Amino acid sequence: MKFYQRIRRIQKRNDSLLCIGLDPDPAKMPVHLRKTRDPLYEFSRRIVDATCDLVCAYKINLAFFEASGVRGLKSLERVVASIPRDVLKIGDGKRGDIGNSAERYSESLFREFGFDAVTVNPYMGTDSVAPFLRDPARGAFILALTSNSGAKDFQYLTSRGRPLYEHVIARTTAWNSRKNCGIVVGATRPGELRRIRAMSADMPFLIPGVGAQGGDIGASVRYGCTSDGSMAIINAGRSILYASSSRDFPQASRTATLRLLDTIRGYREKYFSR
Amino acid sequence: MKFYQRIRRIQKRNDSLLCIGLDPDPAKMPVHLRKTRDPLYEFSRRIVDATCDLVCAYKINLAFFEASGVRGLKSLERVVASIPRDVLKIGDGKRGDIGNSAERYSESLFREFGFDAVTVNPYMGTDSVAPFLRDPARGAFILALTSNSGAKDFQYLTSRGRPLYEHVIARTTAWNSRKNCGIVVGATRPGELRRIRAMSADMPFLIPGVGAQGGDIGASVRYGCTSDGSMAIINAGRSILYASSSRDFPQASRTATLRLLDTIRGYREKYFSR
Repeated sequence: MKFYQRIRRIQKRNDSLLCIGLDPDPAKMPVHLRKTRDPLYEFSRRIVDATCDLVCAYKINLAFFEASGVRGLKSLERVVASIPRDVLKIGDGKRGDIGNSAERYSESLFREFGFDAVTVNPYMGTDSVAPFLRDPARGAFILALTSNSGAKDFQYLTSRGRPLYEHVIARTTAWNSRKNCGIVVGATRPGELRRIRAMSADMPFLIPGVGAQGGDIGASVRYGCTSDGSMAIINAGRSILYASSSRDFPQASRTATLRLLDTIRGYREKYFSR
Repeated sequence: MKFYQRIRRIQKRNDSLLCIGLDPDPAKMPVHLRKTRDPLYEFSRRIVDATCDLVCAYKINLAFFEASGVRGLKSLERVVASIPRDVLKIGDGKRGDIGNSAERYSESLFREFGFDAVTVNPYMGTDSVAPFLRDPARGAFILALTSNSGAKDFQYLTSRGRPLYEHVIARTTAWNSRKNCGIVVGATRPGELRRIRAMSADMPFLIPGVGAQGGDIGASVRYGCTSDGSMAIINAGRSILYASSSRDFPQASRTATLRLLDTIRGYREKYFSR
């Protein structure tokens, strides 16, 4: 099945535009799990078990696994395997390197770790992105306008009348011949989201920054979606993962997920009543 | 010892500006090694053993290890451990993510894998770079103008009269309060190297693209170095690693290394005769 179709199918089945960001931090997780043999896995899989009928995707942040070295990468393998087949597994590694190296990253993320999609940094241009776009069933979300404070350093620099992130989006449109490209736009940029959706009518948007980072959920739904009310993938991490620090944390995460999902569904109803 | 001092010391001791890029590719390495238990390690450590008195650094390309999954990361640990203490170990992963994730990548590369320096992608700005610059003994090379064809897609976009890569360099100068920043500039950009050196008098340049990519060695030495004829770290990979595909490959790599080193020393003598 083609990548866009996979997104639409799971978003329809679970009636959800929500993505949970798995950034497992041993220092923040419940104490009783820190003593287990594989805390990153034990924590993550409980979150997955408690929420996988409420989301369209999990965005797995590689940094939080690599921080534990080889052991962490073993946990990563187990976490990916714990996610049900039709829920999208996004490997958030923001890789980007010259063609022959990007080829290796693509092997690593798609073949070795089994992700369905990845995030990619566009700074090095076409040959650094192409290897992630060969398989029409798997996709790449290109960083355009990110949710963090450093986004302002370069992404807004204006060239030929438009900011760098718009040049990236224009180029992404050209890279999208297999219809498996998406872009990353922070929910903390509601003003820009509208313009960006106008530039790229059919692309999925991966939208981090909801929850702890305070992004705008309404704008994320309204402009993150294509005209049929799908294709926005709205990511929340810390606000769901660390909803409770005691043994009931999976239930607390589910409750936090349901609350956020209700809000998202409300906006979806409002802007795309079907 | 501070980062710049470490570079100067090893460059003086081995009389070398040369860095070997360890991009071990099982498909290209001698057949007899492919059958060993850990080909990535067996190949890399023989290259290291044969060349470590001739170089100032090894640039280890994480993509080539990650392509083999968890097993590859174990090889990576062993390869890093095989490099003599005072030769610089550069973790070429081109990471870049929001502050709290960049923090984790920094833990991974510096603490878990033991690198002395890393390469970093600047697209996400200040908070994505800062965690790599906390320890004055370890450094980060920021991607400015890369050696690949895709470099032209965004890096040359002109804003306020100068190309994006110059904005990156200006910002890197501001990030350099602990004197542990460097930049990455491809040897395939001789025209730009001169201007870039003029912008950043004291920074080390990591210069890939010599050898297989056909970069300009003379310009790399002349403009890659600071006024004392040091701080250029000139990287060659494939032309050294795959100098022979038979059992004598370590000796062939040493010969290829010596030949390139002679050329580099010649230019260093010419432009910085001491």
